[in-house]
Amino acid sequence: MVQHTHQTAPTRHVEANGIRFAYRRFGRHVDKNGSVPLVFNMHLAGTMDHWDPAVTDGLASDRDVILFDNAGISSTSGEVPASVEEMAVNAAAFIKALGLVEVDVLGFSLGGLVAQELAINQPTLVRRLVLVGTGPRGGVGMASLTPEAQRVFGATYEHSDDLWLAVFFTPSDRSQAAGREYLKRFRLRREGRDPEVSEKVAPAQIEALSKWGAPRENPYTYLKTIHQPTLVVNGGADVIVYTVNSFILQQHIPNAQLMLYPDANHGSQYQYPALFVRHVSTFLAGRDFG
Amino acid sequence: MVQHTHQTAPTRHVEANGIRFAYRRFGRHVDKNGSVPLVFNMHLAGTMDHWDPAVTDGLASDRDVILFDNAGISSTSGEVPASVEEMAVNAAAFIKALGLVEVDVLGFSLGGLVAQELAINQPTLVRRLVLVGTGPRGGVGMASLTPEAQRVFGATYEHSDDLWLAVFFTPSDRSQAAGREYLKRFRLRREGRDPEVSEKVAPAQIEALSKWGAPRENPYTYLKTIHQPTLVVNGGADVIVYTVNSFILQQHIPNAQLMLYPDANHGSQYQYPALFVRHVSTFLAGRDFG
Repeated sequence: MVQHTHQTAPTRHVEANGIRFAYRRFGRHVDKNGSVPLVFNMHLAGTMDHWDPAVTDGLASDRDVILFDNAGISSTSGEVPASVEEMAVNAAAFIKALGLVEVDVLGFSLGGLVAQELAINQPTLVRRLVLVGTGPRGGVGMASLTPEAQRVFGATYEHSDDLWLAVFFTPSDRSQAAGREYLKRFRLRREGRDPEVSEKVAPAQIEALSKWGAPRENPYTYLKTIHQPTLVVNGGADVIVYTVNSFILQQHIPNAQLMLYPDANHGSQYQYPALFVRHVSTFLAGRDFG
Repeated sequence: MVQHTHQTAPTRHVEANGIRFAYRRFGRHVDKNGSVPLVFNMHLAGTMDHWDPAVTDGLASDRDVILFDNAGISSTSGEVPASVEEMAVNAAAFIKALGLVEVDVLGFSLGGLVAQELAINQPTLVRRLVLVGTGPRGGVGMASLTPEAQRVFGATYEHSDDLWLAVFFTPSDRSQAAGREYLKRFRLRREGRDPEVSEKVAPAQIEALSKWGAPRENPYTYLKTIHQPTLVVNGGADVIVYTVNSFILQQHIPNAQLMLYPDANHGSQYQYPALFVRHVSTFLAGRDFG
Protein backbone atom coordinates (compact mmCIF):
# COMPACT_ATOMS: atom_id res chain seq x y z
CA MET A 1 0.00 0.00 0.00
CA VAL A 2 1.29 3.45 -0.94
CA GLN A 3 2.20 5.57 2.08
CA HIS A 4 0.78 8.97 1.16
CA THR A 5 1.96 12.32 2.51
CA HIS A 6 0.61 15.84 2.64
CA GLN A 7 1.99 16.39 -0.90
CA THR A 8 0.73 13.20 -2.51
CA ALA A 9 -2.53 12.29 -0.76
CA PRO A 10 -5.30 12.44 -3.38
CA THR A 11 -8.37 14.55 -2.71
CA ARG A 12 -11.25 12.11 -2.25
CA HIS A 13 -14.96 12.65 -1.67
CA VAL A 14 -17.67 11.29 0.60
CA GLU A 15 -21.35 12.26 0.71
CA ALA A 16 -23.19 13.14 3.94
CA ASN A 17 -25.97 15.49 4.99
CA GLY A 18 -26.56 16.29 1.29
CA ILE A 19 -23.00 17.60 0.97
CA ARG A 20 -20.15 16.15 -1.10
CA PHE A 21 -17.17 16.52 1.27
CA ALA A 22 -13.61 16.75 -0.07
CA TYR A 23 -10.95 15.21 2.15
CA ARG A 24 -7.41 13.80 2.19
CA ARG A 25 -6.27 11.00 4.44
CA PHE A 26 -2.66 9.94 4.99
CA GLY A 27 -0.13 8.78 7.55
CA ARG A 28 0.35 5.63 9.50
CA HIS A 29 -2.80 3.55 9.84
CA VAL A 30 -2.28 1.85 13.16
CA ASP A 31 -5.14 -0.47 14.00
CA LYS A 32 -3.66 -2.20 17.00
CA ASN A 33 -3.37 -0.31 20.31
CA GLY A 34 -6.60 1.50 19.52
CA SER A 35 -4.89 4.28 17.57
CA VAL A 36 -7.41 6.88 16.38
CA PRO A 37 -7.39 9.21 13.41
CA LEU A 38 -6.79 12.94 13.93
CA VAL A 39 -9.25 15.21 12.09
CA PHE A 40 -8.09 18.77 11.30
CA ASN A 41 -10.57 21.70 11.32
CA MET A 42 -9.45 24.74 9.35
CA HIS A 43 -9.52 28.49 10.02
CA LEU A 44 -11.40 31.36 8.34
CA ALA A 45 -10.99 31.42 4.55
CA GLY A 46 -8.67 28.41 4.61
CA THR A 47 -8.61 25.23 2.53
CA MET A 48 -6.86 21.90 3.03
CA ASP A 49 -3.80 23.48 1.41
CA HIS A 50 -3.28 26.03 4.16
CA TRP A 51 -2.18 23.37 6.66
CA ASP A 52 1.57 23.19 7.17
CA PRO A 53 3.04 19.90 5.89
CA ALA A 54 5.64 20.10 8.68
CA VAL A 55 2.72 19.76 11.10
CA THR A 56 0.48 17.34 9.20
CA ASP A 57 3.26 15.00 8.06
CA GLY A 58 4.91 15.34 11.46
CA LEU A 59 1.78 14.10 13.18
CA ALA A 60 1.12 11.55 10.43
CA SER A 61 4.40 9.82 11.24
CA ASP A 62 2.63 7.91 14.00
CA ARG A 63 -1.06 8.37 13.28
CA ASP A 64 -3.78 8.57 10.66
CA VAL A 65 -4.40 12.20 9.62
CA ILE A 66 -7.56 13.51 7.95
CA LEU A 67 -7.89 16.96 6.36
CA PHE A 68 -11.22 18.12 4.93
CA ASP A 69 -13.08 21.14 3.58
CA ASN A 70 -16.26 21.79 5.51
CA ALA A 71 -19.54 22.63 3.68
CA GLY A 72 -19.31 25.38 1.08
CA ILE A 73 -15.53 25.57 1.19
CA SER A 74 -13.22 25.03 -1.80
CA SER A 75 -13.61 21.47 -3.12
CA THR A 76 -16.66 20.66 -0.95
CA SER A 77 -20.20 21.36 -2.18
CA GLY A 78 -22.98 23.20 -0.32
CA GLU A 79 -23.16 26.50 1.50
CA VAL A 80 -21.17 27.80 4.47
CA PRO A 81 -23.70 27.96 7.32
CA ALA A 82 -23.77 31.16 9.37
CA SER A 83 -23.34 29.40 12.72
CA VAL A 84 -20.60 27.38 14.36
CA GLU A 85 -23.21 24.90 15.58
CA GLU A 86 -24.24 24.03 12.01
CA MET A 87 -20.59 23.77 10.94
CA ALA A 88 -20.12 21.19 13.71
CA VAL A 89 -23.18 19.22 12.58
CA ASN A 90 -21.65 19.04 9.10
CA ALA A 91 -18.26 18.03 10.47
CA ALA A 92 -19.84 15.23 12.52
CA ALA A 93 -21.74 14.00 9.46
CA PHE A 94 -18.50 13.96 7.46
CA ILE A 95 -16.59 12.01 10.12
CA LYS A 96 -19.37 9.43 10.47
CA ALA A 97 -19.67 9.07 6.69
CA LEU A 98 -16.08 7.78 6.75
CA GLY A 99 -17.31 4.99 9.02
CA LEU A 100 -15.32 6.27 11.99
CA VAL A 101 -16.58 5.78 15.54
CA GLU A 102 -13.75 7.47 17.47
CA VAL A 103 -11.46 10.32 16.43
CA ASP A 104 -9.18 12.95 17.91
CA VAL A 105 -10.07 16.46 16.77
CA LEU A 106 -7.73 19.39 16.16
CA GLY A 107 -9.25 22.80 15.46
CA PHE A 108 -7.42 25.99 14.58
CA SER A 109 -9.07 29.40 15.14
CA LEU A 110 -12.62 29.13 13.67
CA GLY A 111 -11.90 25.40 13.42
CA GLY A 112 -11.31 25.42 17.18
CA LEU A 113 -14.85 26.67 17.75
CA VAL A 114 -16.18 23.87 15.55
CA ALA A 115 -14.00 21.41 17.47
CA GLN A 116 -15.48 22.54 20.82
CA GLU A 117 -19.01 22.04 19.50
CA LEU A 118 -18.07 18.62 18.15
CA ALA A 119 -16.61 17.58 21.51
CA ILE A 120 -19.74 18.67 23.37
CA ASN A 121 -22.28 17.22 20.96
CA GLN A 122 -20.38 14.04 20.06
CA PRO A 123 -18.94 12.92 23.40
CA THR A 124 -18.29 9.34 22.31
CA LEU A 125 -17.09 10.17 18.79
CA VAL A 126 -14.44 12.65 20.00
CA ARG A 127 -11.73 11.13 22.20
CA ARG A 128 -9.19 13.97 22.62
CA LEU A 129 -9.27 17.61 21.61
CA VAL A 130 -6.52 20.00 20.44
CA LEU A 131 -7.54 23.68 20.38
CA VAL A 132 -5.10 25.98 18.60
CA GLY A 133 -5.31 29.78 18.42
CA THR A 134 -8.92 29.85 19.47
CA GLY A 135 -11.25 30.94 22.26
CA PRO A 136 -14.49 30.43 24.16
CA ARG A 137 -18.02 31.63 23.41
CA GLY A 138 -18.17 35.28 24.44
CA GLY A 139 -14.36 35.39 24.62
CA VAL A 140 -12.28 38.56 24.97
CA GLY A 141 -12.40 40.60 21.74
CA MET A 142 -14.34 37.89 19.90
CA ALA A 143 -17.66 39.68 19.21
CA SER A 144 -16.11 40.92 15.96
CA LEU A 145 -12.72 40.73 14.29
CA THR A 146 -10.16 42.38 16.59
CA PRO A 147 -8.92 45.81 15.49
CA GLU A 148 -5.62 44.15 14.57
CA ALA A 149 -7.41 41.51 12.49
CA GLN A 150 -9.48 44.15 10.71
CA ARG A 151 -6.30 46.02 9.81
CA VAL A 152 -4.48 42.87 8.65
CA PHE A 153 -7.39 41.51 6.57
CA GLY A 154 -8.16 44.98 5.16
CA ALA A 155 -4.63 45.71 3.93
CA THR A 156 -3.29 45.01 0.45
CA TYR A 157 -0.23 42.83 -0.07
CA GLU A 158 2.37 42.62 -2.82
CA HIS A 159 1.93 38.83 -2.92
CA SER A 160 -1.41 37.47 -1.71
CA ASP A 161 0.35 34.88 0.50
CA ASP A 162 1.92 37.75 2.45
CA LEU A 163 -1.40 38.19 4.22
CA TRP A 164 -0.52 35.09 6.22
CA LEU A 165 2.77 36.59 7.40
CA ALA A 166 0.74 39.30 9.15
CA VAL A 167 -2.02 36.98 10.43
CA PHE A 168 0.12 34.15 11.75
CA PHE A 169 3.47 35.70 12.74
CA THR A 170 4.71 38.57 14.91
CA PRO A 171 6.63 41.52 13.41
CA SER A 172 9.94 40.24 14.86
CA ASP A 173 12.65 39.22 12.40
CA ARG A 174 12.70 35.72 13.81
CA SER A 175 8.95 35.20 13.54
CA GLN A 176 8.78 36.68 10.03
CA ALA A 177 11.64 34.42 8.92
CA ALA A 178 9.71 31.42 10.27
CA GLY A 179 6.69 32.73 8.38
CA ARG A 180 8.52 32.80 5.07
CA GLU A 181 9.50 29.16 5.64
CA TYR A 182 5.84 28.31 6.30
CA LEU A 183 4.80 30.03 3.05
CA LYS A 184 7.29 27.87 1.16
CA ARG A 185 6.07 24.72 2.85
CA PHE A 186 2.38 25.24 2.21
CA ARG A 187 3.15 25.84 -1.49
CA LEU A 188 5.12 22.58 -1.78
CA ARG A 189 2.14 20.55 -2.92
CA ARG A 190 1.98 21.18 -6.68
CA GLU A 191 -0.75 18.85 -7.97
CA GLY A 192 -4.38 18.55 -7.02
CA ARG A 193 -4.40 21.70 -4.92
CA ASP A 194 -7.65 23.04 -3.51
CA PRO A 195 -9.13 26.10 -5.25
CA GLU A 196 -9.12 29.23 -3.07
CA VAL A 197 -12.43 29.85 -1.29
CA SER A 198 -15.17 31.84 -3.07
CA GLU A 199 -16.05 35.38 -2.01
CA LYS A 200 -19.18 34.02 -0.24
CA VAL A 201 -17.18 32.08 2.34
CA ALA A 202 -15.61 34.71 4.58
CA PRO A 203 -18.80 36.76 5.19
CA ALA A 204 -20.73 33.67 6.37
CA GLN A 205 -17.80 32.55 8.51
CA ILE A 206 -17.42 36.00 10.07
CA GLU A 207 -21.16 36.02 10.87
CA ALA A 208 -20.75 32.66 12.59
CA LEU A 209 -17.67 33.90 14.50
CA SER A 210 -19.49 37.04 15.67
CA LYS A 211 -22.50 35.11 16.96
CA TRP A 212 -20.17 32.77 18.83
CA GLY A 213 -18.13 35.66 20.24
CA ALA A 214 -21.08 37.84 21.32
CA PRO A 215 -21.08 38.77 25.03
CA ARG A 216 -23.50 36.86 27.27
CA GLU A 217 -24.12 35.95 30.91
CA ASN A 218 -21.69 33.40 32.39
CA PRO A 219 -20.09 32.85 29.01
CA TYR A 220 -17.62 30.18 30.10
CA THR A 221 -19.95 27.83 32.00
CA TYR A 222 -20.47 25.65 28.92
CA LEU A 223 -16.76 24.74 28.94
CA LYS A 224 -17.42 22.49 31.95
CA THR A 225 -19.29 20.19 29.54
CA ILE A 226 -16.14 19.43 27.53
CA HIS A 227 -15.14 16.17 29.18
CA GLN A 228 -12.44 15.16 26.73
CA PRO A 229 -8.78 15.59 27.67
CA THR A 230 -7.89 18.83 25.89
CA LEU A 231 -4.65 20.50 24.81
CA VAL A 232 -4.88 24.26 24.28
CA VAL A 233 -2.03 25.82 22.24
CA ASN A 234 -1.36 29.38 21.17
CA GLY A 235 1.25 32.02 20.60
CA GLY A 236 1.91 34.26 23.57
CA ALA A 237 1.16 37.32 21.39
CA ASP A 238 -1.92 36.35 19.37
CA VAL A 239 -3.63 39.53 18.10
CA ILE A 240 -6.23 37.70 15.96
CA VAL A 241 -7.80 35.67 18.79
CA TYR A 242 -6.26 37.22 21.90
CA THR A 243 -3.98 34.90 23.85
CA VAL A 244 -5.92 35.40 27.08
CA ASN A 245 -8.72 33.35 25.50
CA SER A 246 -6.45 30.30 25.52
CA PHE A 247 -5.82 30.86 29.24
CA ILE A 248 -9.59 31.10 29.78
CA LEU A 249 -10.14 27.83 27.90
CA GLN A 250 -7.58 26.06 30.12
CA GLN A 251 -9.07 27.53 33.29
CA HIS A 252 -12.63 26.36 32.50
CA ILE A 253 -12.30 23.07 30.62
CA PRO A 254 -12.06 20.43 33.38
CA ASN A 255 -9.16 18.45 31.91
CA ALA A 256 -7.10 20.88 29.84
CA GLN A 257 -3.40 21.55 29.39
CA LEU A 258 -2.17 24.89 28.04
CA MET A 259 0.95 25.57 25.98
CA LEU A 260 1.92 29.10 24.99
CA TYR A 261 4.88 29.72 22.70
CA PRO A 262 7.16 32.78 22.80
CA ASP A 263 7.19 35.66 20.30
CA ALA A 264 4.37 33.98 18.39
CA ASN A 265 1.11 35.30 16.99
CA HIS A 266 -1.95 33.41 15.73
CA GLY A 267 0.05 30.73 13.86
CA SER A 268 2.35 29.53 16.63
CA GLN A 269 2.13 25.92 15.40
CA TYR A 270 3.64 27.01 12.07
CA GLN A 271 6.41 28.94 13.82
CA TYR A 272 7.46 25.97 15.97
CA PRO A 273 6.22 22.98 13.95
CA ALA A 274 8.67 20.43 15.40
CA LEU A 275 7.94 21.50 18.97
CA PHE A 276 4.20 21.57 18.31
CA VAL A 277 4.28 18.08 16.77
CA ARG A 278 6.20 16.78 19.76
CA HIS A 279 3.80 18.35 22.27
CA VAL A 280 0.69 17.17 20.42
CA SER A 281 2.08 13.64 19.94
CA THR A 282 2.89 13.42 23.65
CA PHE A 283 -0.59 14.64 24.50
CA LEU A 284 -2.40 12.30 22.10
CA ALA A 285 -0.36 9.30 23.29
CA GLY A 286 -1.69 10.17 26.72
CA ARG A 287 -1.68 6.86 28.51
CA ASP A 288 1.82 7.12 29.99
CA PHE A 289 0.83 10.25 31.81
CA GLY A 290 -2.42 9.29 33.54
CA MET B 1 32.62 5.58 38.21
CA VAL B 2 29.51 5.02 40.32
CA GLN B 3 26.35 6.38 38.70
CA HIS B 4 24.55 8.00 41.62
CA THR B 5 20.80 8.63 41.87
CA HIS B 6 18.53 10.74 44.03
CA GLN B 7 18.58 7.95 46.65
CA THR B 8 22.31 7.30 46.72
CA ALA B 9 24.03 10.60 45.93
CA PRO B 10 26.09 11.59 48.98
CA THR B 11 25.60 15.00 50.53
CA ARG B 12 28.79 16.92 49.84
CA HIS B 13 29.93 20.39 50.90
CA VAL B 14 31.57 23.39 49.29
CA GLU B 15 32.49 26.72 50.90
CA ALA B 16 31.58 30.11 49.41
CA ASN B 17 30.63 33.55 50.68
CA GLY B 18 31.47 32.37 54.22
CA ILE B 19 28.83 29.62 53.97
CA ARG B 20 29.34 25.86 53.92
CA PHE B 21 26.86 24.74 51.28
CA ALA B 22 25.41 21.20 51.29
CA TYR B 23 24.69 19.76 47.85
CA ARG B 24 24.15 16.52 45.94
CA ARG B 25 25.16 15.98 42.36
CA PHE B 26 24.12 13.03 40.21
CA GLY B 27 22.99 11.95 36.76
CA ARG B 28 24.70 11.72 33.45
CA HIS B 29 27.81 13.87 33.16
CA VAL B 30 27.85 14.69 29.49
CA ASP B 31 30.85 16.81 28.59
CA LYS B 32 30.59 16.63 24.82
CA ASN B 33 27.81 18.55 23.04
CA GLY B 34 28.09 21.29 25.64
CA SER B 35 25.66 19.68 28.06
CA VAL B 36 25.03 21.91 31.05
CA PRO B 37 24.16 21.00 34.67
CA LEU B 38 20.67 21.75 35.98
CA VAL B 39 20.60 23.44 39.42
CA PHE B 40 17.37 23.05 41.48
CA ASN B 41 16.16 25.86 43.78
CA MET B 42 13.79 24.76 46.54
CA HIS B 43 10.54 26.17 47.94
CA LEU B 44 9.66 27.61 51.36
CA ALA B 45 10.67 25.35 54.26
CA GLY B 46 11.99 22.68 51.91
CA THR B 47 15.25 20.73 51.93
CA MET B 48 16.99 18.66 49.24
CA ASP B 49 14.79 15.75 50.34
CA HIS B 50 11.54 17.40 49.27
CA TRP B 51 12.37 17.08 45.59
CA ASP B 52 10.57 14.22 43.85
CA PRO B 53 12.98 11.49 42.71
CA ALA B 54 10.67 10.86 39.74
CA VAL B 55 11.53 14.38 38.61
CA THR B 56 15.19 14.59 39.62
CA ASP B 57 16.16 11.10 38.41
CA GLY B 58 13.98 11.58 35.33
CA LEU B 59 15.91 14.70 34.37
CA ALA B 60 19.21 13.15 35.48
CA SER B 61 18.80 10.41 32.87
CA ASP B 62 20.29 12.74 30.28
CA ARG B 63 21.90 15.50 32.29
CA ASP B 64 23.89 16.46 35.35
CA VAL B 65 21.56 17.41 38.23
CA ILE B 66 22.54 19.50 41.27
CA LEU B 67 20.40 19.87 44.41
CA PHE B 68 21.50 22.17 47.23
CA ASP B 69 20.37 23.81 50.46
CA ASN B 70 20.71 27.58 50.31
CA ALA B 71 22.18 29.54 53.27
CA GLY B 72 20.69 28.76 56.68
CA ILE B 73 18.70 25.77 55.43
CA SER B 74 19.05 22.23 56.77
CA SER B 75 22.58 20.92 56.11
CA THR B 76 23.95 24.30 54.98
CA SER B 77 25.46 26.75 57.48
CA GLY B 78 24.67 30.46 57.86
CA GLU B 79 21.45 32.43 58.16
CA VAL B 80 18.48 32.66 55.80
CA PRO B 81 18.60 36.22 54.45
CA ALA B 82 15.33 38.15 54.49
CA SER B 83 15.47 39.07 50.79
CA VAL B 84 15.28 37.12 47.55
CA GLU B 85 18.12 39.23 46.18
CA GLU B 86 20.53 38.02 48.91
CA MET B 87 19.35 34.43 48.42
CA ALA B 88 20.31 34.75 44.75
CA VAL B 89 23.74 36.17 45.66
CA ASN B 90 24.32 33.09 47.82
CA ALA B 91 23.07 30.74 45.09
CA ALA B 92 25.45 32.32 42.57
CA ALA B 93 28.36 31.99 44.99
CA PHE B 94 27.51 28.31 45.49
CA ILE B 95 27.35 27.58 41.75
CA LYS B 96 30.64 29.34 41.06
CA ALA B 97 32.31 27.56 43.97
CA LEU B 98 31.65 24.31 42.10
CA GLY B 99 33.76 25.73 39.26
CA LEU B 100 30.79 25.96 36.90
CA VAL B 101 30.63 28.66 34.25
CA GLU B 102 27.27 27.78 32.65
CA VAL B 103 24.20 26.16 34.20
CA ASP B 104 20.49 25.75 33.61
CA VAL B 105 18.40 26.84 36.60
CA LEU B 106 15.10 25.40 37.82
CA GLY B 107 13.26 27.18 40.62
CA PHE B 108 10.07 26.12 42.35
CA SER B 109 7.90 28.66 44.20
CA LEU B 110 10.29 30.72 46.38
CA GLY B 111 13.07 29.01 44.41
CA GLY B 112 11.54 30.47 41.26
CA LEU B 113 12.00 33.98 42.60
CA VAL B 114 15.65 33.19 43.36
CA ALA B 115 15.99 31.74 39.86
CA GLN B 116 14.67 34.95 38.27
CA GLU B 117 17.19 37.04 40.21
CA LEU B 118 19.97 34.66 39.24
CA ALA B 119 19.01 34.89 35.56
CA ILE B 120 19.00 38.70 35.67
CA ASN B 121 22.19 39.15 37.69
CA GLN B 122 24.18 36.29 36.14
CA PRO B 123 23.31 36.52 32.45
CA THR B 124 26.29 34.48 31.27
CA LEU B 125 26.22 31.92 34.09
CA VAL B 126 22.54 31.04 33.53
CA ARG B 127 21.77 29.53 30.12
CA ARG B 128 18.10 28.44 30.42
CA LEU B 129 15.48 28.96 33.09
CA VAL B 130 12.62 26.76 34.33
CA LEU B 131 10.12 28.54 36.60
CA VAL B 132 7.68 26.25 38.38
CA GLY B 133 4.73 27.35 40.54
CA THR B 134 6.03 30.87 40.91
CA GLY B 135 5.32 34.47 40.03
CA PRO B 136 6.66 37.96 39.34
CA ARG B 137 7.59 40.78 41.71
CA GLY B 138 4.33 42.39 42.79
CA GLY B 139 2.38 39.40 41.45
CA VAL B 140 -1.30 38.74 42.11
CA GLY B 141 -1.85 37.74 45.75
CA MET B 142 1.88 37.67 46.48
CA ALA B 143 2.21 40.49 49.03
CA SER B 144 1.55 37.91 51.74
CA LEU B 145 0.65 34.23 51.85
CA THR B 146 -2.66 33.75 50.03
CA PRO B 147 -5.70 33.08 52.26
CA GLU B 148 -5.62 29.48 51.06
CA ALA B 149 -1.91 29.17 51.93
CA GLN B 150 -2.49 30.67 55.38
CA ARG B 151 -5.23 28.12 56.02
CA VAL B 152 -3.13 25.20 54.74
CA PHE B 153 0.02 26.15 56.65
CA GLY B 154 -1.97 26.98 59.82
CA ALA B 155 -3.83 23.66 60.01
CA THR B 156 -2.72 20.60 61.97
CA TYR B 157 -2.21 17.24 60.27
CA GLU B 158 -2.37 13.67 61.49
CA HIS B 159 0.96 12.95 59.76
CA SER B 160 3.25 15.92 59.21
CA ASP B 161 3.81 14.94 55.54
CA ASP B 162 0.07 15.41 54.95
CA LEU B 163 0.69 19.15 54.85
CA TRP B 164 2.16 18.63 51.38
CA LEU B 165 -1.03 16.95 50.13
CA ALA B 166 -2.85 20.22 50.81
CA VAL B 167 -0.09 22.52 49.51
CA PHE B 168 0.79 20.69 46.30
CA PHE B 169 -2.40 18.87 45.20
CA THR B 170 -6.05 19.73 44.55
CA PRO B 171 -8.86 18.17 46.61
CA SER B 172 -9.86 15.86 43.72
CA ASP B 173 -9.51 12.11 44.26
CA ARG B 174 -7.13 11.85 41.34
CA SER B 175 -4.85 14.64 42.52
CA GLN B 176 -4.82 13.40 46.12
CA ALA B 177 -3.95 9.89 44.92
CA ALA B 178 -1.05 11.35 42.94
CA GLY B 179 -0.06 13.20 46.09
CA ARG B 180 0.13 10.05 48.16
CA GLU B 181 2.44 8.56 45.53
CA TYR B 182 4.64 11.66 45.77
CA LEU B 183 4.83 11.31 49.58
CA LYS B 184 6.04 7.74 49.16
CA ARG B 185 8.61 8.76 46.59
CA PHE B 186 10.16 11.58 48.61
CA ARG B 187 10.54 9.22 51.58
CA LEU B 188 12.35 6.59 49.49
CA ARG B 189 15.80 7.90 50.35
CA ARG B 190 16.59 6.28 53.68
CA GLU B 191 20.20 7.20 54.42
CA GLY B 192 21.85 10.58 54.70
CA ARG B 193 18.62 12.53 54.65
CA ASP B 194 18.60 16.26 55.27
CA PRO B 195 17.37 17.40 58.70
CA GLU B 196 14.10 19.34 58.58
CA VAL B 197 14.58 23.13 58.56
CA SER B 198 14.84 24.98 61.88
CA GLU B 199 12.00 27.18 63.13
CA LYS B 200 14.00 30.28 62.08
CA VAL B 201 13.80 29.45 58.38
CA ALA B 202 10.15 30.01 57.43
CA PRO B 203 9.79 33.48 59.03
CA ALA B 204 12.83 34.82 57.15
CA GLN B 205 11.65 33.22 53.92
CA ILE B 206 8.15 34.65 54.33
CA GLU B 207 9.63 38.10 54.94
CA ALA B 208 11.60 37.74 51.70
CA LEU B 209 8.51 36.54 49.81
CA SER B 210 6.42 39.45 51.09
CA LYS B 211 8.99 42.06 50.06
CA TRP B 212 9.18 40.48 46.61
CA GLY B 213 5.40 40.32 46.30
CA ALA B 214 4.65 43.85 47.54
CA PRO B 215 2.68 46.00 45.07
CA ARG B 216 4.64 48.59 43.11
CA GLU B 217 4.49 50.73 39.97
CA ASN B 218 4.91 48.82 36.68
CA PRO B 219 5.73 45.63 38.57
CA TYR B 220 6.39 43.47 35.52
CA THR B 221 8.77 45.72 33.58
CA TYR B 222 11.81 44.00 35.08
CA LEU B 223 10.80 40.72 33.39
CA LYS B 224 11.96 42.20 30.05
CA THR B 225 15.51 41.89 31.38
CA ILE B 226 15.31 38.08 31.58
CA HIS B 227 16.95 37.23 28.28
CA GLN B 228 17.32 33.49 28.82
CA PRO B 229 14.92 31.10 27.09
CA THR B 230 12.44 30.34 29.85
CA LEU B 231 9.90 27.60 30.50
CA VAL B 232 7.10 28.51 32.92
CA VAL B 233 5.16 25.57 34.41
CA ASN B 234 2.28 25.42 36.85
CA GLY B 235 -0.93 23.70 37.79
CA GLY B 236 -4.06 25.28 36.36
CA ALA B 237 -5.47 25.60 39.91
CA ASP B 238 -2.56 26.82 42.03
CA VAL B 239 -3.93 28.43 45.22
CA ILE B 240 -0.50 28.96 46.84
CA VAL B 241 0.97 31.15 44.08
CA TYR B 242 -2.05 31.89 41.90
CA THR B 243 -1.86 30.40 38.40
CA VAL B 244 -2.43 33.77 36.73
CA ASN B 245 1.09 34.70 37.87
CA SER B 246 2.50 32.05 35.54
CA PHE B 247 0.53 33.57 32.68
CA ILE B 248 1.93 36.99 33.60
CA LEU B 249 5.50 35.62 33.61
CA GLN B 250 4.99 34.18 30.09
CA GLN B 251 3.46 37.41 28.82
CA HIS B 252 6.35 39.60 30.02
CA ILE B 253 9.52 37.49 29.72
CA PRO B 254 10.65 38.00 26.11
CA ASN B 255 11.38 34.35 25.31
CA ALA B 256 9.09 32.25 27.51
CA GLN B 257 6.93 29.18 27.00
CA LEU B 258 4.07 28.39 29.36
CA MET B 259 2.72 24.96 30.32
CA LEU B 260 -0.29 24.60 32.60
CA TYR B 261 -1.46 21.18 33.76
CA PRO B 262 -5.07 20.19 34.50
CA ASP B 263 -6.62 19.67 37.95
CA ALA B 264 -3.28 20.55 39.53
CA ASN B 265 -2.36 22.86 42.39
CA HIS B 266 1.07 24.20 43.43
CA GLY B 267 2.92 20.88 42.90
CA SER B 268 1.89 20.10 39.33
CA GLN B 269 5.35 18.70 38.54
CA TYR B 270 4.86 16.05 41.23
CA GLN B 271 1.39 15.19 39.94
CA TYR B 272 2.61 14.66 36.36
CA PRO B 273 6.30 13.83 36.84
CA ALA B 274 6.74 11.88 33.58
CA LEU B 275 5.05 14.59 31.53
CA PHE B 276 6.98 17.33 33.32
CA VAL B 277 10.28 15.54 32.73
CA ARG B 278 9.45 15.16 29.04
CA HIS B 279 8.49 18.81 28.66
CA VAL B 280 11.54 20.10 30.54
CA SER B 281 13.92 17.76 28.67
CA THR B 282 12.49 18.93 25.34
CA PHE B 283 12.85 22.54 26.44
CA LEU B 284 16.42 22.17 27.74
CA ALA B 285 17.50 20.29 24.59
CA GLY B 286 16.33 23.37 22.75
CA ARG B 287 18.42 23.34 19.60
CA ASP B 288 16.02 21.34 17.42
CA PHE B 289 13.35 23.94 17.93
CA GLY B 290 15.15 27.18 17.14
